[in-house]
Amino acid sequence: MNKFIRVNMTTKEVVTGEAPEKYAGLAGRALTSNFVNDEVKPTCHPLGKNNKLIFAPGLLSGTSASQSGRLSVGAKSPLTGTIKESNTGGTFSQKMAKMGIKALVIEGMPEEDKFYVLKIDMNGVTIEDAPAEILGGCGNYEALKVLSAKYGAKVGIALAGPAGEYRLPTANISFKDPEGNIRSAGRGGLGAVLGSKKVKALVIDDTGAPGVTLAKPEEFRAAAKAFAKALTTHPVTGQALPAYGTDVLVNILNEAGGLPAKNFTAGRIGWNDKISGETMNATITERGGDGKVSHGCHAGCIIRCSQWYPDKDGKYVTSGFEYETVWALGADACIQDLDDIAYIDRAMDDVGVDAIDVSVAVATAMEGGLLPWGDGKATLEAIKQIAIPTPLGRIIGGGTAIVGKVCGLFRTPVVKDQAIPAYDPRAIKGIGLTYATTPMGADHTSGYCIATNILKVGGYVDPLKKEGQVELSRNLQIATAAVDSTGMCLFIAFAILDIPEGFNALVDMINARYGLSLTADDVTALGKSILKAERAFNAAAGFTNAHDRLPEFFEYEPCPPHNAVWDFTPEEIDEVFNF
Amino acid sequence: MNKFIRVNMTTKEVVTGEAPEKYAGLAGRALTSNFVNDEVKPTCHPLGKNNKLIFAPGLLSGTSASQSGRLSVGAKSPLTGTIKESNTGGTFSQKMAKMGIKALVIEGMPEEDKFYVLKIDMNGVTIEDAPAEILGGCGNYEALKVLSAKYGAKVGIALAGPAGEYRLPTANISFKDPEGNIRSAGRGGLGAVLGSKKVKALVIDDTGAPGVTLAKPEEFRAAAKAFAKALTTHPVTGQALPAYGTDVLVNILNEAGGLPAKNFTAGRIGWNDKISGETMNATITERGGDGKVSHGCHAGCIIRCSQWYPDKDGKYVTSGFEYETVWALGADACIQDLDDIAYIDRAMDDVGVDAIDVSVAVATAMEGGLLPWGDGKATLEAIKQIAIPTPLGRIIGGGTAIVGKVCGLFRTPVVKDQAIPAYDPRAIKGIGLTYATTPMGADHTSGYCIATNILKVGGYVDPLKKEGQVELSRNLQIATAAVDSTGMCLFIAFAILDIPEGFNALVDMINARYGLSLTADDVTALGKSILKAERAFNAAAGFTNAHDRLPEFFEYEPCPPHNAVWDFTPEEIDEVFNF
Repeated sequence: MNKFIRVNMTTKEVVTGEAPEKYAGLAGRALTSNFVNDEVKPTCHPLGKNNKLIFAPGLLSGTSASQSGRLSVGAKSPLTGTIKESNTGGTFSQKMAKMGIKALVIEGMPEEDKFYVLKIDMNGVTIEDAPAEILGGCGNYEALKVLSAKYGAKVGIALAGPAGEYRLPTANISFKDPEGNIRSAGRGGLGAVLGSKKVKALVIDDTGAPGVTLAKPEEFRAAAKAFAKALTTHPVTGQALPAYGTDVLVNILNEAGGLPAKNFTAGRIGWNDKISGETMNATITERGGDGKVSHGCHAGCIIRCSQWYPDKDGKYVTSGFEYETVWALGADACIQDLDDIAYIDRAMDDVGVDAIDVSVAVATAMEGGLLPWGDGKATLEAIKQIAIPTPLGRIIGGGTAIVGKVCGLFRTPVVKDQAIPAYDPRAIKGIGLTYATTPMGADHTSGYCIATNILKVGGYVDPLKKEGQVELSRNLQIATAAVDSTGMCLFIAFAILDIPEGFNALVDMINARYGLSLTADDVTALGKSILKAERAFNAAAGFTNAHDRLPEFFEYEPCPPHNAVWDFTPEEIDEVFNF
Repeated sequence: MNKFIRVNMTTKEVVTGEAPEKYAGLAGRALTSNFVNDEVKPTCHPLGKNNKLIFAPGLLSGTSASQSGRLSVGAKSPLTGTIKESNTGGTFSQKMAKMGIKALVIEGMPEEDKFYVLKIDMNGVTIEDAPAEILGGCGNYEALKVLSAKYGAKVGIALAGPAGEYRLPTANISFKDPEGNIRSAGRGGLGAVLGSKKVKALVIDDTGAPGVTLAKPEEFRAAAKAFAKALTTHPVTGQALPAYGTDVLVNILNEAGGLPAKNFTAGRIGWNDKISGETMNATITERGGDGKVSHGCHAGCIIRCSQWYPDKDGKYVTSGFEYETVWALGADACIQDLDDIAYIDRAMDDVGVDAIDVSVAVATAMEGGLLPWGDGKATLEAIKQIAIPTPLGRIIGGGTAIVGKVCGLFRTPVVKDQAIPAYDPRAIKGIGLTYATTPMGADHTSGYCIATNILKVGGYVDPLKKEGQVELSRNLQIATAAVDSTGMCLFIAFAILDIPEGFNALVDMINARYGLSLTADDVTALGKSILKAERAFNAAAGFTNAHDRLPEFFEYEPCPPHNAVWDFTPEEIDEVFNF
């Protein structure tokens, strides 16, 4: 897996070569972040020719290891102005890995106003005109149909939706999942970067791919087995997530008083039963949605957390129906009808926007008077307008920071212009440090302190106290950067934090795959080096510690029921990255 | 003039005391910028209780010196996130000075959702409920009428228009001018800060004011006479500006190839005759607008550059009808009808937005497909929608940076999120350095290199060459910071740069006013110290040299007719503030 492909959209040249020596041993986020830091001008405009978009499977992608099918996409973010790694399921990563492609880079920018499709197969990359019928606001579900019909049902697809075509700051990159539906590299507006390069879609056909070679097949199989065992044994990955999906967190966070409600004015709601994972599961089961309850976002997933939500007639509405979306619309925007939320989730996938930033934008817009509180129908209409786009569609598709600006709000829940997700930083202080300091802008996945603060995974740190949070956020950010480089789904963290054999099996798999002899220390060193590269890029782009701060209102407004405030000093926050 | 008044809108307390010792000798921008740097938390949200808004007349305000009636308003800017000094005419500055008020500070923020009027007179400041009829989108012209009827025709008024009430990023603070029309502290969204503090208006009544005491009246009168002579002698302040207003620059910049056209795609237009100062003057003269052609923005102005533009029936439409507005709408947005532009200018004054940021936003929105190119009627409708505000009104009132984001544009002419005004930095390189490096965000007034690059005032530096520009921008920024502290209109710079007696007279007036013995070196030192305080604030707020850059497209797109590009290196740009 050492092919390094560069597609220059200015010249339409494609260059396929060996990966540069300096990237030996790097994959996934380690590769995308180092590449962006090496090659992207930090002060460039994210939508200009100097930005570069890189797709990279992880170290274990393409193997039979459970959960190894995640893809990293990197660039300078149009939403935050920082470096960005956005991580997705789907079928792309494994196909790239099996074809021996370590990375695909899209650089430059066409002068002509015309969209293209990049067709990737064992013969290389061809740049074709995008079919007219998928342009100009065509929804992603329809576009996937058109592209699958044209290129074959088995191809992998990455897509700039309407929002990406229009280069809106919340545009995601949508990926075809194993069933032909949608997964997303959601955060940071990388779909706008794809759109700026006039690439409507990437289509990948792995016919004839040699597949991945294992240096030590026996050792790999043994480790993979031990790894899978850890996943199935752990209560979070073995029971809670498979049964209820991530939406299992509604009741847990509500109980903890850390479920942000009505644009972060409280940490608990009374209507949690209407939107909880238990209710979602019961609804899906009762409606008998196409015979499915849940599925995996990529082949080889054994957690299968992605819920398959049907309408009242049992017909598919949406999947990848995550806790963060249900929280943002259901609790933060007070939309109390799970069907309404499901249709909005589908609409967001269809127009191709980050479900977190846009859903938080909806709640923020409600505070700003742009939408009525709790109105699911009005929200659905607003989301659909992104495909046109109307001025309202542009505002909502601009994301939470833009909504805050045009509504003149003091209470705008963003860090580095990216929306704060589903865990209140006042009541769960560890995650607040992650929001503040991660190079990505507010992002729970980059150091998921909920694990230890709430789920008691990897030990326990009292969520309401400051003690131990700096170390927790720091250690989880380091570990996460490493995990994001393996191609592994981040949820493996629950199992490897609690089960030493699981962690060892992960390292053993990497060693067996490549014939290495890495240790736990090497994994930590990798994580640190990734974070340092990301911070270096951000510093050169103009970010300082002054940007590593939560919105001020968290300092002044106590969050019921605990009435906690955000009370870390700047100096304490800055300790997170003191390593 | 040493009263220092603090109005706390959280507690409704008013404290009037002597100005702190450290502010001795500081006024205008020197005072507002030092105060903001001293007291405003750099990382605070501009619309929160930790921001403070300060109004300060200049060193010479309240005296009989020509051009001394300008007011400085300072705060952290909601538009740029930087420190901001916004400078205005009107009657406020002289009244404050005559009442002995060195500064008025508004701090805190009410919890209740209710607007107030601050009534300032010789008895102090009272906080009154704002009249209901001037709230909820009432235009500034009507609000001025209501307030003048209530408080008397002679009071000075500062006003948050509809945009300020809604806290839009381009909201200005509108001031009553001597005729009861509107002047604005335009740039940087300080009207949104006023609106966030729930102050709809400030009303100042100087009945019984003691007036300004001169330490050396004879010397003052002699100096003031010499100063006035310099102004009337210089061709710019004595002839061009009085005759044609600032719009005289249309033909001059067009000839120079530095008049940005169609969202900065060229530096020259073919329809300059339709919008030039000569045409404006002929139109006004022909229509016989209320018997006026031009007037001063404050009492004591002898330049009288503000044009008094009437409709076809000779009825007043707008005044303060500046080159930058005519340029942005007429050349940059290609609206070729001067009447259309005049009505849009009036509408911007009426809703209370910065005419530069919003007019450039209009041109940018045309590139982004939100408005049709050159359509004055559609633009007028969009501006009026700011008073409602509709989603389109919010976008346009959000300013150029927001328009660029929601339209996914690469070509967004802003620095630090503030719109670049009417002089192309590729063809006039000195002004480009000012845009890039001033602590204010793109602002021509903070170091007006056009003077020397184009008008050959203060010498000549070839606009198309890099040589000499760093020193020019640096020196003008230093001098401007000092002038902005005197209460003097910046246009005096033309005369004092060319006529040594004019400069000496300015220093002599300050010395005679206060009984000092300042020299030219002291003026330079003052200018430098102001800029350093402003940079210190910005650095603590998270700004670095990486923010001192022009939009990337200026580096790649040659600007006809000279086909010049922006070619300063980062290192060269950073030399401007190396002092």
